[in-house]
Amino acid sequence: MSSSLLHPDRLFPANPELRTVARELYQSIKDLPIVSPHGHTDPSWFANNQCFDNAADLLIKPDHYVFRMLYSQGIALQDLGVPTADGSPTSTDNRAIWRLFAKNYHLFAATPSRMWIDHVLYQVFGFSERFTEASADKFYDEINRQLATDEFRPRALLDRFNIELIATTEGALDTLEHHAKIRADGWGHRVVTAYRPDNVVDPEFEGFLDNLKVFGELSGCDISTWEGYLNAHRNRRAFFKSMGATSTDHGHAKATTANLSLEDAQALYQVVLSGKATAEQADTFRGQVLTEMAGMSVEDGLVMQLHPGSYRNHNQVVFDTFGRDKGADIPEQTEYVRALKPLLDKYGNNPNFTLILFTLDETVYSRELAPLAGHYPCLRLGPPWWFHDSPEGMRRFRQQATETAGLYNTVGFNDDTRAFLSIPARHDVARRMDCVSLAEWVADHRITMDEAHELAHELTYGLVKRAYKLD
Amino acid sequence: MSSSLLHPDRLFPANPELRTVARELYQSIKDLPIVSPHGHTDPSWFANNQCFDNAADLLIKPDHYVFRMLYSQGIALQDLGVPTADGSPTSTDNRAIWRLFAKNYHLFAATPSRMWIDHVLYQVFGFSERFTEASADKFYDEINRQLATDEFRPRALLDRFNIELIATTEGALDTLEHHAKIRADGWGHRVVTAYRPDNVVDPEFEGFLDNLKVFGELSGCDISTWEGYLNAHRNRRAFFKSMGATSTDHGHAKATTANLSLEDAQALYQVVLSGKATAEQADTFRGQVLTEMAGMSVEDGLVMQLHPGSYRNHNQVVFDTFGRDKGADIPEQTEYVRALKPLLDKYGNNPNFTLILFTLDETVYSRELAPLAGHYPCLRLGPPWWFHDSPEGMRRFRQQATETAGLYNTVGFNDDTRAFLSIPARHDVARRMDCVSLAEWVADHRITMDEAHELAHELTYGLVKRAYKLD
Amino acid sequence: MSSSLLHPDRLFPANPELRTVARELYQSIKDLPIVSPHGHTDPSWFANNQCFDNAADLLIKPDHYVFRMLYSQGIALQDLGVPTADGSPTSTDNRAIWRLFAKNYHLFAATPSRMWIDHVLYQVFGFSERFTEASADKFYDEINRQLATDEFRPRALLDRFNIELIATTEGALDTLEHHAKIRADGWGHRVVTAYRPDNVVDPEFEGFLDNLKVFGELSGCDISTWEGYLNAHRNRRAFFKSMGATSTDHGHAKATTANLSLEDAQALYQVVLSGKATAEQADTFRGQVLTEMAGMSVEDGLVMQLHPGSYRNHNQVVFDTFGRDKGADIPEQTEYVRALKPLLDKYGNNPNFTLILFTLDETVYSRELAPLAGHYPCLRLGPPWWFHDSPEGMRRFRQQATETAGLYNTVGFNDDTRAFLSIPARHDVARRMDCVSLAEWVADHRITMDEAHELAHELTYGLVKRAYKLD
Repeated sequence: MSSSLLHPDRLFPANPELRTVARELYQSIKDLPIVSPHGHTDPSWFANNQCFDNAADLLIKPDHYVFRMLYSQGIALQDLGVPTADGSPTSTDNRAIWRLFAKNYHLFAATPSRMWIDHVLYQVFGFSERFTEASADKFYDEINRQLATDEFRPRALLDRFNIELIATTEGALDTLEHHAKIRADGWGHRVVTAYRPDNVVDPEFEGFLDNLKVFGELSGCDISTWEGYLNAHRNRRAFFKSMGATSTDHGHAKATTANLSLEDAQALYQVVLSGKATAEQADTFRGQVLTEMAGMSVEDGLVMQLHPGSYRNHNQVVFDTFGRDKGADIPEQTEYVRALKPLLDKYGNNPNFTLILFTLDETVYSRELAPLAGHYPCLRLGPPWWFHDSPEGMRRFRQQATETAGLYNTVGFNDDTRAFLSIPARHDVARRMDCVSLAEWVADHRITMDEAHELAHELTYGLVKRAYKLD
Repeated sequence: MSSSLLHPDRLFPANPELRTVARELYQSIKDLPIVSPHGHTDPSWFANNQCFDNAADLLIKPDHYVFRMLYSQGIALQDLGVPTADGSPTSTDNRAIWRLFAKNYHLFAATPSRMWIDHVLYQVFGFSERFTEASADKFYDEINRQLATDEFRPRALLDRFNIELIATTEGALDTLEHHAKIRADGWGHRVVTAYRPDNVVDPEFEGFLDNLKVFGELSGCDISTWEGYLNAHRNRRAFFKSMGATSTDHGHAKATTANLSLEDAQALYQVVLSGKATAEQADTFRGQVLTEMAGMSVEDGLVMQLHPGSYRNHNQVVFDTFGRDKGADIPEQTEYVRALKPLLDKYGNNPNFTLILFTLDETVYSRELAPLAGHYPCLRLGPPWWFHDSPEGMRRFRQQATETAGLYNTVGFNDDTRAFLSIPARHDVARRMDCVSLAEWVADHRITMDEAHELAHELTYGLVKRAYKLD
Repeated sequence: MSSSLLHPDRLFPANPELRTVARELYQSIKDLPIVSPHGHTDPSWFANNQCFDNAADLLIKPDHYVFRMLYSQGIALQDLGVPTADGSPTSTDNRAIWRLFAKNYHLFAATPSRMWIDHVLYQVFGFSERFTEASADKFYDEINRQLATDEFRPRALLDRFNIELIATTEGALDTLEHHAKIRADGWGHRVVTAYRPDNVVDPEFEGFLDNLKVFGELSGCDISTWEGYLNAHRNRRAFFKSMGATSTDHGHAKATTANLSLEDAQALYQVVLSGKATAEQADTFRGQVLTEMAGMSVEDGLVMQLHPGSYRNHNQVVFDTFGRDKGADIPEQTEYVRALKPLLDKYGNNPNFTLILFTLDETVYSRELAPLAGHYPCLRLGPPWWFHDSPEGMRRFRQQATETAGLYNTVGFNDDTRAFLSIPARHDVARRMDCVSLAEWVADHRITMDEAHELAHELTYGLVKRAYKLD
């Protein structure tokens, strides 16, 4: 079910020598299973295995990469059917939404969204004519027809996409009943959760104090004390681990970590509980909890992931009208060297600890992250992330991080997506770009072809399995 | 009037496949008219249409890109005829200045200045032998001979250079009499002004309080109150608009914007008027005026341009001896995400507003500017600027901004120059480098050749016309 | 003594046209003498001319690039024979250390360490089979055999490596007796020192106050006063100059410079002497001394080198166990524009002054360093440094600095190493990458082949000789 509209050499260099090497390497790894240790697919899909509804609901309304670009060119989010926060009217004419998208598809030229959607249309749905305003209706009807078939049920797609394992991400208060059903149905070896406790770690999170109450109830721990609060985390981590989790995930404004005395930590927690923490205290608290999480990782073996540096919901009008996660999360400069020192001083040399660092600020690849990862035994570098999950972003990461960090201090690819149908496209882009980097090093004789084959396998499959302890 | 010394494939890739595609794209757009919406040519040239004087006065003394490089290698600015601030002696031997330049022309190897000057010498003046110390005199005489001909009068050059429109930049206190004459002579459709009010917006500008007095007189507004001050801007903006302006231009130290209450703004203005504003108050004031300017743009439709981040006149000795703008403006790190939020919260979603952002700090392309422009409807990204108006600067901009911002959130090329004869060279470099980027995306199958042709036209002509409302 | 395992075209582009040009340029400069104006080889080697001991002691234990990468993958430093600070046990089984290194040699894939070590093994030692776990013992024995021969004595290697001049680096308190012997033996024209006074300039250096006492004794100056302290520097600089020094070297946390009044400087010095300087006062003191050093350079002609921006000994556990310089120096963001202004205001336009700037923060190449160096007569840009002394680091430097700074404001290559046997490898990488940059500019017609030949010679040999006043 490939398509002549996806060129077999896409993303490969024009130089014949490089292209030949890239092709050969790609052939050797393109069919390896997908391991997706970090993402945001909905576990209810895999639990209930229901058909997806229609093209607009699946491919446009939930994909902020798609609607943010259309919005940036003056198209109202209501006209794209993005749900409003207060329930005020938004388009429900899915065909009209799809047509509007088709009419403006040129806006995505040379973006990764374009590549991912092309892959979904021409590979996953098998279209052999171009997606244009003129063909929009035909695409809409045919996509909807296919979505209603058994072949497009979530579990069938896991097979078809050759997904060996996929991790979802759930908050600390999640009851994981979908994962329970997944495990009861025998799919627990393929769909696992990850522990994302931001809403009970960040005092500035909406509803934080209410969240803490639920946190105490769910864990059966007395969250009125620092010790009880930490025990609640231990309890929830164990529960998540029982649902397959091998990792935790932390999305903070900064990379701050702290290493307070027990007394100071207790006192700070009481300030936080009072709801009167200053911005600085909130930052220190998040940093202290990160260090505690590292300590718990040493105990329970969960791999820790940290991705700081996003100014969330930057557009106030859009936030007020449509709520969170509407394409207005903007990266900021992020400092790691001093920020991570307290945590690293305590756990940085511990052989039982793994901390995977991500960034939205590419300036730290060569300056901070690669030197840190090229020294500390606990550190690994996550792949290019968010806006950098793109051919040029991947190229810059390999060019800027490899020489100092080495390839073995990286962890393969994360798709980090809720756009399930785009997962094969995203992994394919990563595999192709990795083969391009390897081909360049082969062509200028920095590595041998034998090494390149070994490294292609590692970057695609070996590193992710070991880093996330999935073996 | 081309020259064998300018290779027809200059700046194109060595790879034959890429070069062929780049050539084809370039052929399709190289003869499109030049639209120059932002620059610093002198409107008196176009008003009076006098011949230029001689090679040294035209090509060396006013071009800080040229004399800063010579100065960096130990050549005294006096020996290059750069005028002193206090009228102390400087060389008036234009032939000797030209010879000194020729003798040191090797210093410009691999810089954009070298490409621009080569283009001027070999294309505009049509020389077919190399510019060297040995040929310096011959060049000097022949250039001066040509400059004295009617073909080299400014209006003739507008035709010869195929300049459809050129914008100059004038301060808020400018009386625009040259533009009045230009319009009276029927050239107002080709030469327009732009409103650059820094000297009445920045409390730290030399002579700011005196400037305000003139500002009040010219506008007939009472600048002793905040309301009157704002009305003076409205008045001047309308006057500039009557002289063809479609844009305003703001060169601030930082990207700070503010959204004070009316009361606070009034109070701050009185502090500023007292001449006692602190550095922080001055920054807030500039930021508040930017937000007011955005509001006026919503009313009068002028497109707003912001280019922060230069430490002006960094070399104190050079400043004391020669005055402003002597090649010692040094970029600094610049933050946009928090700085722009007050303005964007107020006008960022307004469909009548366009804000074009420039930067001298390339680290923000992928981290801040592309994500902002890929979301906010009002935002567009200006082209690489100042030191980045260069082949490698342009390449980095396309590589780092395109995937997240998309191409349609950019605005084509600005030459931003006072070096009139270099305008075709600068646009030619930009067109070539755009074709190189497009060729790379065609060659690795990210876009089709049809799309590349469409995009080449957009990047050269379509985007600038729409972004600057020149249709 | 070349080897089929080092490809003659290594690091050259795959494109045949580019490769041909790069090859031709490289042929013309590859055999030029090595000039190494900045490095950390041990002068006792050249004074005593003893044989090196064994492969592990020479190539692993002292090379923090090697053991930091192994450590980052969980190999204990003790197992690599890295000496402990307190004399607690560390491996002394050199053959086992060598085997452990061989077993993990794949970790260095695509890093510069891999290229350097390959060069040492296959070129310097002449091996013609691959270095693997299986061949480790054979390599170990053969290396040790060769090291015991006269051909591998340090002075013989200076000849064999075609090293015209090498500078070592000594602290202000060094008595330079090795250099005295070198000069007595007639090698003073090839091995010189450089003045590195950090341990008597930085109030936060371990043992600073004790160091000052020795500083006073060695110089015969009264270091209880600011004037005496400065005279002590003058005295030591003259002594170092008599041992061949043409440069000073300053490794500070920041690029801060200061220009205090004499009174304020005197007062600050007394605070520093009291041992009670705050962090801010310590930074100002270092900055003031830098400006004083610049003034002394104007007097005595020593070229000044500044390389700020490293967070030293970041890993507290490793520091406590093994001491300084164990691969845990992590770069930080570094600001130059404001930091250097006090010094530049005072000496920036002085024709007798040269300041060579280095950075560990690549973001400043295009934003700060190139614009500064493209203007100030005193400034030159040092080559890519530390983690950036690598093919990709060199490429980024040329791409980001050249267009604004020009090539003549750079100073050729520094190897900056204590790994003596890797010096030819490091210079070879730099020469190859310079030829690659030049070939790209030739291929896209930015420079002519004649210019490229001239520039290749300058980048390899001419610039370093002039910048460091080695003629």
